[in-house]
Amino acid sequence: MAEHRRFFPGQGPQPLASLLAAAGIKLEGYPERSFADVAALAEAGPDEIAYFETARHRGVLSATRAGAVILREADAVALPSGCLPIICAMPSLAFALIAAVFHPIPRGTGQRHASAAIDPSAQIDPSADIGAFAIIGAGAEIGAGCIIHPHAVVGPDVVLGENCTIHPHASISHAICGRGVVLHAGARVGNEGFGFTPTAQGGYVTMPQLGAVLLGDDVEVGANACIDRGALGDTVVGRGTRIDNLAQLGHNVQLGRSCVVVSQVGISGSAVLGDWVQVAGQAGIAGHLKIGDRARIGAQAGVMRDVEPGADMLGSPARPARVKMREIATVQRLAAAALKPTTKKDN
Amino acid sequence: MAEHRRFFPGQGPQPLASLLAAAGIKLEGYPERSFADVAALAEAGPDEIAYFETARHRGVLSATRAGAVILREADAVALPSGCLPIICAMPSLAFALIAAVFHPIPRGTGQRHASAAIDPSAQIDPSADIGAFAIIGAGAEIGAGCIIHPHAVVGPDVVLGENCTIHPHASISHAICGRGVVLHAGARVGNEGFGFTPTAQGGYVTMPQLGAVLLGDDVEVGANACIDRGALGDTVVGRGTRIDNLAQLGHNVQLGRSCVVVSQVGISGSAVLGDWVQVAGQAGIAGHLKIGDRARIGAQAGVMRDVEPGADMLGSPARPARVKMREIATVQRLAAAALKPTTKKDN
Amino acid sequence: MAEHRRFFPGQGPQPLASLLAAAGIKLEGYPERSFADVAALAEAGPDEIAYFETARHRGVLSATRAGAVILREADAVALPSGCLPIICAMPSLAFALIAAVFHPIPRGTGQRHASAAIDPSAQIDPSADIGAFAIIGAGAEIGAGCIIHPHAVVGPDVVLGENCTIHPHASISHAICGRGVVLHAGARVGNEGFGFTPTAQGGYVTMPQLGAVLLGDDVEVGANACIDRGALGDTVVGRGTRIDNLAQLGHNVQLGRSCVVVSQVGISGSAVLGDWVQVAGQAGIAGHLKIGDRARIGAQAGVMRDVEPGADMLGSPARPARVKMREIATVQRLAAAALKPTTKKDN
Repeated sequence: MAEHRRFFPGQGPQPLASLLAAAGIKLEGYPERSFADVAALAEAGPDEIAYFETARHRGVLSATRAGAVILREADAVALPSGCLPIICAMPSLAFALIAAVFHPIPRGTGQRHASAAIDPSAQIDPSADIGAFAIIGAGAEIGAGCIIHPHAVVGPDVVLGENCTIHPHASISHAICGRGVVLHAGARVGNEGFGFTPTAQGGYVTMPQLGAVLLGDDVEVGANACIDRGALGDTVVGRGTRIDNLAQLGHNVQLGRSCVVVSQVGISGSAVLGDWVQVAGQAGIAGHLKIGDRARIGAQAGVMRDVEPGADMLGSPARPARVKMREIATVQRLAAAALKPTTKKDN
Repeated sequence: MAEHRRFFPGQGPQPLASLLAAAGIKLEGYPERSFADVAALAEAGPDEIAYFETARHRGVLSATRAGAVILREADAVALPSGCLPIICAMPSLAFALIAAVFHPIPRGTGQRHASAAIDPSAQIDPSADIGAFAIIGAGAEIGAGCIIHPHAVVGPDVVLGENCTIHPHASISHAICGRGVVLHAGARVGNEGFGFTPTAQGGYVTMPQLGAVLLGDDVEVGANACIDRGALGDTVVGRGTRIDNLAQLGHNVQLGRSCVVVSQVGISGSAVLGDWVQVAGQAGIAGHLKIGDRARIGAQAGVMRDVEPGADMLGSPARPARVKMREIATVQRLAAAALKPTTKKDN
Repeated sequence: MAEHRRFFPGQGPQPLASLLAAAGIKLEGYPERSFADVAALAEAGPDEIAYFETARHRGVLSATRAGAVILREADAVALPSGCLPIICAMPSLAFALIAAVFHPIPRGTGQRHASAAIDPSAQIDPSADIGAFAIIGAGAEIGAGCIIHPHAVVGPDVVLGENCTIHPHASISHAICGRGVVLHAGARVGNEGFGFTPTAQGGYVTMPQLGAVLLGDDVEVGANACIDRGALGDTVVGRGTRIDNLAQLGHNVQLGRSCVVVSQVGISGSAVLGDWVQVAGQAGIAGHLKIGDRARIGAQAGVMRDVEPGADMLGSPARPARVKMREIATVQRLAAAALKPTTKKDN
């Protein structure tokens, strides 16, 4: 289970003071101590920092060998003696920030592989990295600190803001990206949407897909996920939205800020999602719907109608969670009753 | 919303006469007028052409600033004065044909990137384009006007008819394609099917997958979609069929002509679909089934039995739409009734 | 239907004795006979070997033109005269082994394409093949007989055991693989998991994903499938497990030995599956669940709770198959009854 040391040696040891500063935590005492790395609560050793967030791991907490644990004040009583408590209100967040001290997000430092095919008209910041066999199209603009990994394809006139990362085999065309956008391996952004129209002879003619894709700051797109460009007008993903592997966004979809779209979700063309919408794995949203802010769509749900802000939807076709749970219980009760007809009285 | 101008400058202006000729429309008068481009009804300006098809946009129609709108005769009354009506029976189709005058489908013109790895035994029409880092295997045949985009891989002995387009990072092997076939970015055609057989020791042995993939004229395969080759015999997709992103076709699947397979659909091995079958998003079809011509499979449906021609199926397991709707209504009614037992009388 | 001859000429003819030896079958007589290839029962000719396994094809059996058919003893009576029966208890297995004599699994023979970008610190067995534009990162280890196809990317420090095959456009990072591992085209192994944590300002901070992926011997990963690396600790796939196209494994998932994960399945983070678990197409498994050995999860099922060993689950939310079938029947009965209220008596 320690195979990751091979891949993530990290920049330890780090003094506790620097780690706490990164997380914005003030802690009395222990100024001289250092730590080698972060680790999971169950596996951390005396020179490592772990965190405790969810009750699921409470049994692990009292047995941890970690040198320090980030946790809420109320949980500190369960720590074994000798383990340093690092108290804060948001342990996961503090852990993420401290982990990033040991394992900072890579940024471009101006490396260019000789094999990359870069159009002379592309404007590439000198600090950007361009990997082997990467392609940068004519008129593309690549911001400072970007990393274009090997085999990535950045199409003509695409704009990437500062500190974007395009992983291997990802492709992006017809798109304008803010800062800190990440496309994971094999992500496809800017594809021609699924637009065509029947002919009188029973065939189809492609409807030209003339829009773009606009990705806000810090948008992440998962491995092998797909975002089609707009047909007329643009496909838009708001700042901070996270899209998981193998998800699909059709043409002219609009996602608000800080949405979470889990793996294998499909969002059909022209659907409009508000801010902080969460769509769980394998759910589907039909075309042209409006999904309000902070709505939550359950795993495998099939949304066929507009959804109110803050609503919690389950099932296919999707229903308010409370209603769906009642329907499930009703069916279970009736099916169980049908099993024993002789003892059934009043149902 | 006008970001697309960066990516689709277009070949405007075009005289109205040429545009109408492309769509096969005869229009009296206005012979001297020209238009700069097509645009959406809500965004078009006085030098642009929009179209009106669905009642959903009726409010937009009367407020459009478009110079001309393609629409049905009955809808022309709602046009603002000064806006030129272009009357036809199939506005979407006319719009697609007119849009293609401004934005013609790219065809190969004989460009070859020096970095492409082309086997000397491949037969490539002089007019075909071969992009950077593309690979053309031994014995492959590439027809006139084809565009093999950067990073595409065309395997040994693959045949592409005229005017095929293989987008970046798509790969195709063990396949014979007609004219006008399009593989979008990351599409995988000709993969080894999911075939293996258990051993007495609890492991598996791969069943050699010795078939091919046959794609008819004008077949389109979406981004990151997968079509496995046949195990014994071939996987076949009929002329004009459109397959969306992230769809999956197992080995020995047969699709008829002009089918529509929406994003994230899965069609299991040896299923046979007729012509004009429509399979909506995230639906699944089990192996070895027969789906009749013009059947419609709803989003997220799970088809476990053969489907009659023209049938409309919903749900998982899939049921005739009318039956499924009744089942849904029944469950909703019973669950609602269960909420108020004291007022329930006879159910 | 014979297009596959173009792609799979095969190494025939082969003497019957060699074929039977490969399958471990002893057969009296016929020592001098040879066969040209394997084929499907319905298409095989007099110089080809077919097999018969499932009752579905019984009608085909009596009409086959195959020179020999591998089948169980009880089925041999249905063979046409002149067709040689090859009797064995596991016909599919014997066919797979015999087919592999005509069409052996390719192994590396030390070919290196000049365009491949190989880090000098990588340790590559001299017998491994490295294709055009492939990338081998620093410190990677590639075993004997491996084939790294064109455009494959093997990240820094990745380990591939003997006889692994990485198909075109697949990428693998942060991973250690046993022998005989296969990644099909576009597979993504070692991606950063979908891990982030909310900030007080309504955004997200990425949780560094510091784990690895461990793939056991003979694991296969389908085209465009995704396996994320662990967050802390590793994602693990046991020996012999087969994963189909477009499937998704989240961070820290653990799969046992000889599992079967069909196309478009999603397994959420930290789920733990035992040995010989079968997950049918488009099913989903929620995070942190435990699925016992030999459990079977039906197509499109949505597993929200732990599953006992050997259990058979259907539906979303998933229920024991017997219970789910009863629930479906109950709903169908009630909905049908609701149609004809006047004839309804006691329900």
